[in-house]
Amino acid sequence: MLCAMGTNKKSPRARELLAQNVVRLRADRKITQERLGEMADLHPTYISAIENGRRNASLDSIERLAIALQIPIADLLSE
Amino acid sequence: MLCAMGTNKKSPRARELLAQNVVRLRADRKITQERLGEMADLHPTYISAIENGRRNASLDSIERLAIALQIPIADLLSE
Repeated sequence: MLCAMGTNKKSPRARELLAQNVVRLRADRKITQERLGEMADLHPTYISAIENGRRNASLDSIERLAIALQIPIADLLSE
Repeated sequence: MLCAMGTNKKSPRARELLAQNVVRLRADRKITQERLGEMADLHPTYISAIENGRRNASLDSIERLAIALQIPIADLLSE
């Protein structure tokens, strides 16, 4: 059974992990959501929705983010 | 720019990584696509499409697979 977002501290949900990692990596690189969107060819609204955990991102989109951020895709889903 | 599946040996595409890992982990556990589908509450056709790299899986579905296989989600996208 899937648990509600944020209720299981030992195992944060995938959307939460992705959100945290994108926010952190974008901050490290000092780039805006708009700029990351341009780099990954994704709409800034989509970036925002990912960072808020509202969107069920697709693997192809997550890959675009990883390529834009120049990291292995698994890093976007690591704790 | 995204490269075509399998053309860049140093950095396999995300779909390919997911496919390889699901096939391998399912074989390790000696379970069928049907059984994994039941465990993850996903249609066996969806499992098959993921294992063939035909489907752009969603993060929520990848998470269901990780939970069913009892591994961290990042492991499904690791090389």
